[in-house]
Amino acid sequence: MRNLKLIIEYEGTNYSGWQAQKTLPTVQGTLVQVARRLTRDENASVAGASRTDAGVHALGQVVGLKADTDMSCQDLIKGLNFFLPDDIVVKEAIDMPPDFDPRRGSKGKIYLYRIVNRNHPSALLRNFSWNIFNPLDLGAMREAATHFIGEKDFSSFMAADSDANHAVREVTSVEIFEKEDGLLEIEVRGTAFLRHMVRIMVGTLVAVGKGKRRPADIHGIIDARSREAAGMTAPAQGLCLVRVEY
Amino acid sequence: MRNLKLIIEYEGTNYSGWQAQKTLPTVQGTLVQVARRLTRDENASVAGASRTDAGVHALGQVVGLKADTDMSCQDLIKGLNFFLPDDIVVKEAIDMPPDFDPRRGSKGKIYLYRIVNRNHPSALLRNFSWNIFNPLDLGAMREAATHFIGEKDFSSFMAADSDANHAVREVTSVEIFEKEDGLLEIEVRGTAFLRHMVRIMVGTLVAVGKGKRRPADIHGIIDARSREAAGMTAPAQGLCLVRVEY
Repeated sequence: MRNLKLIIEYEGTNYSGWQAQKTLPTVQGTLVQVARRLTRDENASVAGASRTDAGVHALGQVVGLKADTDMSCQDLIKGLNFFLPDDIVVKEAIDMPPDFDPRRGSKGKIYLYRIVNRNHPSALLRNFSWNIFNPLDLGAMREAATHFIGEKDFSSFMAADSDANHAVREVTSVEIFEKEDGLLEIEVRGTAFLRHMVRIMVGTLVAVGKGKRRPADIHGIIDARSREAAGMTAPAQGLCLVRVEY
Repeated sequence: MRNLKLIIEYEGTNYSGWQAQKTLPTVQGTLVQVARRLTRDENASVAGASRTDAGVHALGQVVGLKADTDMSCQDLIKGLNFFLPDDIVVKEAIDMPPDFDPRRGSKGKIYLYRIVNRNHPSALLRNFSWNIFNPLDLGAMREAATHFIGEKDFSSFMAADSDANHAVREVTSVEIFEKEDGLLEIEVRGTAFLRHMVRIMVGTLVAVGKGKRRPADIHGIIDARSREAAGMTAPAQGLCLVRVEY
């Protein structure tokens, strides 16, 4: 039985998220079907480092693939990409020790959230960004972002239906980059994240950018340990899992 | 009768190019229908600065809209975007003198061609790039690119079915940018272009990058004044009309 680490890229638009479901198309469900077909191992399994939501994209999702196969890593990459739909691509495959677990082994993750901040929508980025018409105050957003840094109880930034045991997570950096034509990129790095955490952080930063909250309010929002204290959950399609670190 | 200049963005994936056709969906056809519906002027017409091919995208196509309407430019933008599908967006609208012609008035155009040069496809850029698996020699491609600069007879870089009167065009710059993860961006600027000219230039540069042609061969290819002398026409989906200058 091989234990492989795959790095995969996908556009989440046409999937009901990462995690396999009985009737809806998911990235995990699609990948495990193709892996079983290719390796002819009906018990092959795949596990992801991050359970991305419906509509969320990945440039570097890490997947643990357990399968009984003699194929070389190069042939696995080629074979999986041959059978996979165009919106899921295997970029790398490497054999790992039996105890490698993509989720528990992860030391950090990098997410990117794209906002198009201009008074008209974007045709090319419509499935990859959140369109905000009113001008955002980037200075205030950058100040607010610094207050997320550190190891904190992020209960206020956790989806109501989260099954996490506790909400203490460490955010190591939040940077906001201004690109051309109103494109903003918010890069969030941390050791681990709660369900919807990045999207609620972004929704709260946008509330600051609109002047509805002050940068210093972030402290109180975190201290409240209540989902209602924070801003809205930013739409899924703006989010991309860039990299998982080990 | 108003004569308006629109700047529009579109993803070309789902259209049979810019130019209106009887049965197939086109960007021009879609836009003129929406403009007539919004302005209630059944004779409203739209003309584009560039007749982009099926699958080609635009960040800054310029459109001349002739219509009998009292709407403000802001209301026209909002109204057109309300009725247009998500993959076509009006970014700007401004009233022009009656003699403004988006095609004849153009002083220059900027196109961007994206190549993903790595040994696996791209899920996120699959509709926006040409995937080339074997490593390209960028140094050779950059040297070859310099030989396109200037006013030349580009007959060798013209689609066989072009209806141009003559093939003399001026290319002012060709730059190749290396981005992350194997993404290459080839930016081509010129005063005007022949049908398929940028795509044939890119196909020929790729032949140089693969070592099938030498950089200095570009001179002989241009001198041949024959479509057969040049390389293949690069796939449409990698091309984007970035800006039209006046």
